[in-house]
Amino acid sequence: MKGVKRNMEEQGLVYGRNPVEELLETSKRKINKILIAKGIKQDNKIKKIINTARDNGILLQEVPKEKLNTMIQGNHQGIIALVSDIEYAELEDIRIKLSKKEAPQLIIMLDSVEDPHNLGAIIRIAEVAGADAVIIPKRRSASVTPLVEKVSTGAVEYMPIIRVTNLTDTIRKLKDDGFWIYGAESSGDTYYFNTDYAERTLLILGGEGKGISQIVKKNCDVLIKIPILGNINSLNVSSAASISIFEIVRQRILKNQINA
Amino acid sequence: MKGVKRNMEEQGLVYGRNPVEELLETSKRKINKILIAKGIKQDNKIKKIINTARDNGILLQEVPKEKLNTMIQGNHQGIIALVSDIEYAELEDIRIKLSKKEAPQLIIMLDSVEDPHNLGAIIRIAEVAGADAVIIPKRRSASVTPLVEKVSTGAVEYMPIIRVTNLTDTIRKLKDDGFWIYGAESSGDTYYFNTDYAERTLLILGGEGKGISQIVKKNCDVLIKIPILGNINSLNVSSAASISIFEIVRQRILKNQINA
Repeated sequence: MKGVKRNMEEQGLVYGRNPVEELLETSKRKINKILIAKGIKQDNKIKKIINTARDNGILLQEVPKEKLNTMIQGNHQGIIALVSDIEYAELEDIRIKLSKKEAPQLIIMLDSVEDPHNLGAIIRIAEVAGADAVIIPKRRSASVTPLVEKVSTGAVEYMPIIRVTNLTDTIRKLKDDGFWIYGAESSGDTYYFNTDYAERTLLILGGEGKGISQIVKKNCDVLIKIPILGNINSLNVSSAASISIFEIVRQRILKNQINA
Repeated sequence: MKGVKRNMEEQGLVYGRNPVEELLETSKRKINKILIAKGIKQDNKIKKIINTARDNGILLQEVPKEKLNTMIQGNHQGIIALVSDIEYAELEDIRIKLSKKEAPQLIIMLDSVEDPHNLGAIIRIAEVAGADAVIIPKRRSASVTPLVEKVSTGAVEYMPIIRVTNLTDTIRKLKDDGFWIYGAESSGDTYYFNTDYAERTLLILGGEGKGISQIVKKNCDVLIKIPILGNINSLNVSSAASISIFEIVRQRILKNQINA
């Protein structure tokens, strides 16, 4: 993946012949429009893109090459797709759904995870672990861009992702629903494997470097930590997610709460 | 990080003002030489690089800009550093060292992990977990480039990394030393938490997509798997590494084999 392309993917633009072709073939994300430069050489790849777009009822628009140049700094190869963000889930919908679902339940909350690679990786881990939802804040967080979707290897299509304005409000609501709140923090009180995770568990992971914010930390019932046995003093947040989420899975399988 | 730079880093070349400055400041890797374009504008950054290099006894060489153009496709900004690979550890040295060290011991072996991001991430995880060494094959594997070093957040400086020609020969030698061999495989016989890891554990993880090769798999004493509870049918190899390595850590802490 090219650097420039990554930047553009974050803005909901996918460009270049191969990326747009891949988008059409594999992504379930809504493509709002495909812009094609006037006078572009209609090679087989461009023809295929045009046909696939037409078959799927996607709007195709011919525009002067100069227009595309103003949208993309890099080499767009005469083609740009405008994609919408994924559809986020609503907290209230998920609360209602979970009120009717038998425990165990698991929700992952990310406090300021800003790197899209980490967000995508964690969504994948949560999906493989059978989590019920991932909650991210609207501000100071990566959003679910095409890059995140790609890193998640498609897990964003299966995993409800909720964007909320206020993490502490959300925590309070989930406490009302019977959730216990676990925060993973290097300054945690107990090792992640020394606590018995509740049937309704909200696990909170903090962003790169900064960890969980003070106000969110205060709302946790238990602060867990991962043992650091070497010279490097921290794990990447997606590693911390892997370890703590699968400890919850391990406990639930051993308690026969999950059939696996 | 720019795509082109990443490619070049894999070849032991680091270029551009900011990357070379960073290399001088933070990396313990040996810089063999710094090439500077003749007639380059000596701004503050270039002056600082030249001074730091001189202070550290690094060879500086002025060459025509055209020479740099032949080495790098991207924009080198008139400066290229030639760096050597890290110094790999020797298997025999580590075997002798471990023969004198009390158990528990843990070695991680990677069978064809080709993505440098995964290799760097796993070295970081292994270091945080207090592993004794990471073994990679000489062929069909990422090697420890500056990019791997960066992703490992410096863990390559602490973690002995051994490159071997033949994984199965290496496994046999470690069996002779009393190691038990665990392979993490989606087709594994038992969940990773349902086995009691030996005091001398060799954990083998397979490369992206392909997993552990048949011949290596045959040499494993136990094949472990991670439960897949969602729709996505696999974890990234660095997630699998996080989960399985920290299960070994968890067991050892609970058995008081490790003080943590």
